[in-house]
Amino acid sequence: MPMDTQRLSSDLAAIVGDEGVISRADQLVMYDCDAYTIEKALPTVVVLPTSTDHVSAICRLAHRAGLPVIPRGAGTGLSGGALAVEGGIIISLTRMNRILEIDIPNRFVRAQTGVVNASITKAVRSTSPPLFSSDSGNNPTMSKLSEPEKGGGLGGGSSDFFFAPDPSSQGACTIGGNIAENSGGPHTLRYGVTANHVTGLTLVLPDGTVEELGGPEREPFGYDLVGIVVGSEGTFGIVTEATCRILRKPEAVVTLLASFPSVESATQAVTAVIAEGLQPAALEMMDRPVLEAVEMAFGYGLARGAEAALIVEFEGCAPFVQEASQQGDAICRAEGAFAVLSATEDLERAKLWAARKKAIGALGHITPSVVTHDGVIPRSKLPSVLAQCADIARRHGLRNANVFHAGDGNLHPVLMFDDTDPEQVRAVVAAGEEILNTCLAAGGSLTGEHGIGIEKATMLDRMFDADTIDCMRRLKTVFNPDGRCNPGKIFPDSKHCYEMKPRRGPIGV
Amino acid sequence: MPMDTQRLSSDLAAIVGDEGVISRADQLVMYDCDAYTIEKALPTVVVLPTSTDHVSAICRLAHRAGLPVIPRGAGTGLSGGALAVEGGIIISLTRMNRILEIDIPNRFVRAQTGVVNASITKAVRSTSPPLFSSDSGNNPTMSKLSEPEKGGGLGGGSSDFFFAPDPSSQGACTIGGNIAENSGGPHTLRYGVTANHVTGLTLVLPDGTVEELGGPEREPFGYDLVGIVVGSEGTFGIVTEATCRILRKPEAVVTLLASFPSVESATQAVTAVIAEGLQPAALEMMDRPVLEAVEMAFGYGLARGAEAALIVEFEGCAPFVQEASQQGDAICRAEGAFAVLSATEDLERAKLWAARKKAIGALGHITPSVVTHDGVIPRSKLPSVLAQCADIARRHGLRNANVFHAGDGNLHPVLMFDDTDPEQVRAVVAAGEEILNTCLAAGGSLTGEHGIGIEKATMLDRMFDADTIDCMRRLKTVFNPDGRCNPGKIFPDSKHCYEMKPRRGPIGV
Repeated sequence: MPMDTQRLSSDLAAIVGDEGVISRADQLVMYDCDAYTIEKALPTVVVLPTSTDHVSAICRLAHRAGLPVIPRGAGTGLSGGALAVEGGIIISLTRMNRILEIDIPNRFVRAQTGVVNASITKAVRSTSPPLFSSDSGNNPTMSKLSEPEKGGGLGGGSSDFFFAPDPSSQGACTIGGNIAENSGGPHTLRYGVTANHVTGLTLVLPDGTVEELGGPEREPFGYDLVGIVVGSEGTFGIVTEATCRILRKPEAVVTLLASFPSVESATQAVTAVIAEGLQPAALEMMDRPVLEAVEMAFGYGLARGAEAALIVEFEGCAPFVQEASQQGDAICRAEGAFAVLSATEDLERAKLWAARKKAIGALGHITPSVVTHDGVIPRSKLPSVLAQCADIARRHGLRNANVFHAGDGNLHPVLMFDDTDPEQVRAVVAAGEEILNTCLAAGGSLTGEHGIGIEKATMLDRMFDADTIDCMRRLKTVFNPDGRCNPGKIFPDSKHCYEMKPRRGPIGV
Repeated sequence: MPMDTQRLSSDLAAIVGDEGVISRADQLVMYDCDAYTIEKALPTVVVLPTSTDHVSAICRLAHRAGLPVIPRGAGTGLSGGALAVEGGIIISLTRMNRILEIDIPNRFVRAQTGVVNASITKAVRSTSPPLFSSDSGNNPTMSKLSEPEKGGGLGGGSSDFFFAPDPSSQGACTIGGNIAENSGGPHTLRYGVTANHVTGLTLVLPDGTVEELGGPEREPFGYDLVGIVVGSEGTFGIVTEATCRILRKPEAVVTLLASFPSVESATQAVTAVIAEGLQPAALEMMDRPVLEAVEMAFGYGLARGAEAALIVEFEGCAPFVQEASQQGDAICRAEGAFAVLSATEDLERAKLWAARKKAIGALGHITPSVVTHDGVIPRSKLPSVLAQCADIARRHGLRNANVFHAGDGNLHPVLMFDDTDPEQVRAVVAAGEEILNTCLAAGGSLTGEHGIGIEKATMLDRMFDADTIDCMRRLKTVFNPDGRCNPGKIFPDSKHCYEMKPRRGPIGV
């Protein structure tokens, strides 16, 4: 370890304690990548604060030293947003995992941003008063249960609440990462993205200034600083705390799994379900390579012999859900589905969703590595763009697979490759660029929920004109004037010189 | 008219034609105020463009001349946001009232921002294919009806769509004004504010640069420039076109009007309806002064003898709506309601909503003028804050009234006064400040949907700390570096020297 790194480490240890600093080379390699499989970069040091004060002190130190700071959650990001491409201090938020306040009457949870996405829902579930019981739900973290909720009401079959954004990595990814990438998930179709569910946050600027933005109210006032910070990919500062809206669970949910003989017929069914006005809460598609990998991984026996399958979920009041799911079933069969499973119980549904949410991970059974793209296209262009993606992969000699949010046109074309073969890595990068250009040509965008990161930074000017990019650059300087916070991300002219070195290990989308 | 104004007028006429320029003093007075009743200010000239190119050329001209530009919609704003407090060019967007594109399959409408809010819904209603008919809905403005909608589906009782933000002034106010103020309305409880329903916009910067931000996709990518422009109160530039999401109408709607013997019992019912988890789509409250004014204006005979009334609306599938409205009825009666009307037909419902939406205008029957405040408080604080507001008005010798969005804690305390009496004007300003401070003390905010404008600019530092205000200032300079676009708004240190002169004429909230 060079002398100045040693000094830096001890200065950081003075803030967070010895156990909160990682500077040994063999430990730093754990932080040289995220779930973007094409590139890696080594930080100078990693620090694990436990409070906003810690983060502020770390930023002040970095400001004085002129060092980059890179916020990092669980490292499940798919566009390289957590990579220390210019070295510097990675601020890992995984120890900032405390839920600070649960306010059921006013429908919010305040949490440190290292809290795992699924933990928000777990926390409000466990603190809700149980059904048919006089237990008032005394929980040390519940501060203001002045207006107790009654179970069994029309608004839900139980008194449970939930946090809506549900990226497939929600068992691992953090609220902070969701905020950075403005994450969505299968239920974005009904509930929107993270920006729709975060109303307040604590932002530590790169110079250590702490800003409290927004609050529990849903309606923003003044400039919507919370809204602009959500989705800024860590280039504005470090978000250390967040106020998250919670929603009441629907009364009834039915999840269909429909098996189709072709990708085309499944796509037609997507269009038909939407056109019929059934308003599914989620409408997901998986093609044969994905279904086979899932079968290999879990042996659920789902969608055997299908070229494509749809997951179609309806939620709301029981009579609506029953009728909609019957109509959804009929539409799928009319478009050629040869089997439609229906799950109403939580356990059955969990199995269907496990198949979907672990799909990318399951691909590890059939390929050494994958790159997952994230183009968004107008829903009406689904059939033609999917065909073009398959064609592009074929021309580059790559296998491709699809598992994506069909209902809102958010594609996740997956390219499979051997990451030890430089030829295949080059092919995957070239094919990915063509796929994204195809999305743009269809009137869509480069990313729906994975961010620009380093992956798509060089393509920014195909999406935005020079005036808009210039506006974005100036916007960044409002928060991050010297560019030290998460450098090399989003904008194409980064001076980073990271190693272009393929690596192993896909992580679930 | 001074010579330089004459020259300015003829330069503007060269852009928009003679009929698009207003410079005669007797005509300019029409533009010296909006619906904020406390202040007025005269512009140098008013220009009425019909295209984005016009607006860009006007801004370039103003940039060269160093003149302020002030965007203006219908002038229904309640915080003085459209006042030319430093003189300059008011850019009135009322002639930019064309709907540019209707895309039912991808669920959006693109329109010029002078389009009246209610016209978006009218446009998609009239272009939807009629029920049970082979008419494919040929309409010249419909560009991409490639995926025709079927009527009678589960998603709605008809094939109608609508634009969700519904300020009470929606028959007059423009989409551009809604974007500037991030407007809400009674159905914000279910559908959120304007920011949740605008996905793309064309922004003309004060120097004339035209930026195309966002698009039809719901998921933003890169920095959320659309999100930050929505709610910026015209201080970033002139929004000339917008892409608005449209939603399918619910299958069933029931609207209750419940009459209560006291404000307290009505407030308890609000709390009880929410706590029961009934999830109303709207939950509005009106007190006796408002009810009496409405009765005087319309003679509907609604809520006779009530100290307060609630409008509680449920929407969704028919069985849910039926059960929820029965439960809502029972809860209101249990909290003391002595009468509960229920309306299921569109015409009956329209009558109840007319009472609510024209309430502020109706107050003109009992007072020369009003000021309507816009504080947001945690819902659980409603009873105590309402009592404090009444007390503040009493202490200042003013009558007050309340008509507001109870379900999401967005108060509209109305102060009635004689605007020709300087003493009363002073009292109204002082009482308003106390009311807003009460909202802040309750953990709330200064505004939910009316904006900061000039009205609350001097109170900004009670809501935000110096670092945050500094951040907002820097954010403004990204778009509006020399501050010429809508000067004197939001920030307290404006150097404006407008006449503090009361005026007449409330306009509906």
